[in-house]
Amino acid sequence: MKTLIGVDVGGTRLRAARFSPELEMHDRAEQPTGAADGADAVFDRLAETIRQVLPPDPADLLAIGVALPGPLDIDKGVLIAPPNLPFRDVPIREMLRSAVGGPVFIGNDADLAGVAEYRYGAGRGARSMVYLTISTGIGGGLLLDGRLHTGRGLAGEIGHMVVDPDGPLCGCGRPGHLEALASGTALARAARERLAAGEDSLMREAVGGDLTQVTGALVGAAALEGDALARDIVQQAGRALGVALASLTALLNPDRFVLGGGVTALGDLLFDPLHEALRTYAFHPRYYEDVPVVEAALGDDVGLVGAAAFAAMQLESR
Amino acid sequence: MKTLIGVDVGGTRLRAARFSPELEMHDRAEQPTGAADGADAVFDRLAETIRQVLPPDPADLLAIGVALPGPLDIDKGVLIAPPNLPFRDVPIREMLRSAVGGPVFIGNDADLAGVAEYRYGAGRGARSMVYLTISTGIGGGLLLDGRLHTGRGLAGEIGHMVVDPDGPLCGCGRPGHLEALASGTALARAARERLAAGEDSLMREAVGGDLTQVTGALVGAAALEGDALARDIVQQAGRALGVALASLTALLNPDRFVLGGGVTALGDLLFDPLHEALRTYAFHPRYYEDVPVVEAALGDDVGLVGAAAFAAMQLESR
Repeated sequence: MKTLIGVDVGGTRLRAARFSPELEMHDRAEQPTGAADGADAVFDRLAETIRQVLPPDPADLLAIGVALPGPLDIDKGVLIAPPNLPFRDVPIREMLRSAVGGPVFIGNDADLAGVAEYRYGAGRGARSMVYLTISTGIGGGLLLDGRLHTGRGLAGEIGHMVVDPDGPLCGCGRPGHLEALASGTALARAARERLAAGEDSLMREAVGGDLTQVTGALVGAAALEGDALARDIVQQAGRALGVALASLTALLNPDRFVLGGGVTALGDLLFDPLHEALRTYAFHPRYYEDVPVVEAALGDDVGLVGAAAFAAMQLESR
Repeated sequence: MKTLIGVDVGGTRLRAARFSPELEMHDRAEQPTGAADGADAVFDRLAETIRQVLPPDPADLLAIGVALPGPLDIDKGVLIAPPNLPFRDVPIREMLRSAVGGPVFIGNDADLAGVAEYRYGAGRGARSMVYLTISTGIGGGLLLDGRLHTGRGLAGEIGHMVVDPDGPLCGCGRPGHLEALASGTALARAARERLAAGEDSLMREAVGGDLTQVTGALVGAAALEGDALARDIVQQAGRALGVALASLTALLNPDRFVLGGGVTALGDLLFDPLHEALRTYAFHPRYYEDVPVVEAALGDDVGLVGAAAFAAMQLESR
């Protein structure tokens, strides 16, 4: 039976799955990344994980799609400098082609998660969809008229749009990016700063006064319990997201937004200020009316499904 | 000979031209819009202008492309509410098809100017290009991998991206949009406010103390003469443009920016702070290195050429 392989290369887990051309998953393999063992060991483990799901007859392999953390040089098939993996300027596409065979297509993991949601998840039926994944950082994918927009391979970095030129520094070192205002990391930093300044909150007792222990997850939990400081911080994050979405509507005029990642578990605490800011900053109601902002529908397998779906898209567009 | 017609519908002039399929202009017609005469009179004049350039044999007409001020409903072919024309919710595409024949394609004038620059002007050879036109307002066009991205017909409104959430109100009524910070209108408003607050400037004498006479063009002229207040205002505008371009690089990863419109005549006074802000706010040097920011190459005919080029693109994509 003809087969697509989806591969998800993460800092913690290596995963691969075998799919039918209709994207039904038939088999999967998974093991820890073991990033500390170095590039060669991780690559061997990755190839081994993929081999476990290859079809018995190599002629049945249509293509392998691989979701990788950015930045990537997609045209050259090179993994440039992922923060949580030991690869530096590695020609991963050619290496995998030699090691496991088949046409290999690589893509940014957030982009490919966007592809999965667009084709099989919360984005089904949309014409142009913007995908955001909000957890430690903020990633994104632009699905425009059926195509993933990659630019020269680096597009869709929604977390690095400027939302407030006078805002705090982002992890990338630049000021005022969305990721510095609305990621899990941003929630934690804002909480630490305001606790250090003496504001009252449940969070202080929760970490026994050790502010280095404050995480985005803790801010979220405290907000859900009704803590006023945590709620205010989440509200600011929602507002920053709404400002970014307003710019995205003017620019791309999408008909759907899909939001994934842990931060979306905050529900209305996040989405109410998001919608309020979207209404305040968007050019005209035509840009947000009938433009649902929905939560991602695919779970933990979004990377695997996206990688296989991306491989299918690339085969179609040839 | 097979013929494409380009039409440019402006608040001041109606223009039409006959082109070869290779986009050589062979004939043109033009007359004042006379918007004050009302919708029927303007439409009759438009149809008459187009008829002057139609090919003698109707079988030679490939298509008519029409550049119109937004907002437009491209799918339905409806002109919604252009600020400087007497049309309101007018099914202009069907009306033109009945009046002058041929397949008619309508598009936003800034989008179509972007198409012209991408195919025949300063954008030639680019893969993904962002076009901005900066004059009274700020418009834009997104040319991504050979296609004009229109979303549901309203995309590319770069002037209505949020650059500073605490910034001044835009003409559209929303705060902090690029157009409120970097258009000719924004230059004039900033100058009026700072002159009213008592700041010293050549501009005060130039308008005989009547601040209502301060225009964007005056601010530009004073800046070129070395006036400190005018230069500071232009610098702020350049910075706002650089912030917007930084967001656009993260999002779309274009390989070229093309800037048109009167404000670009300010040269380095505008472009130096623009580049400085781009370097300050962009995610990573890979996003702006080897990404030229160039001035538009086509002159006053950009709308006519863009309309004909757009019609050709639409025929190709059928």
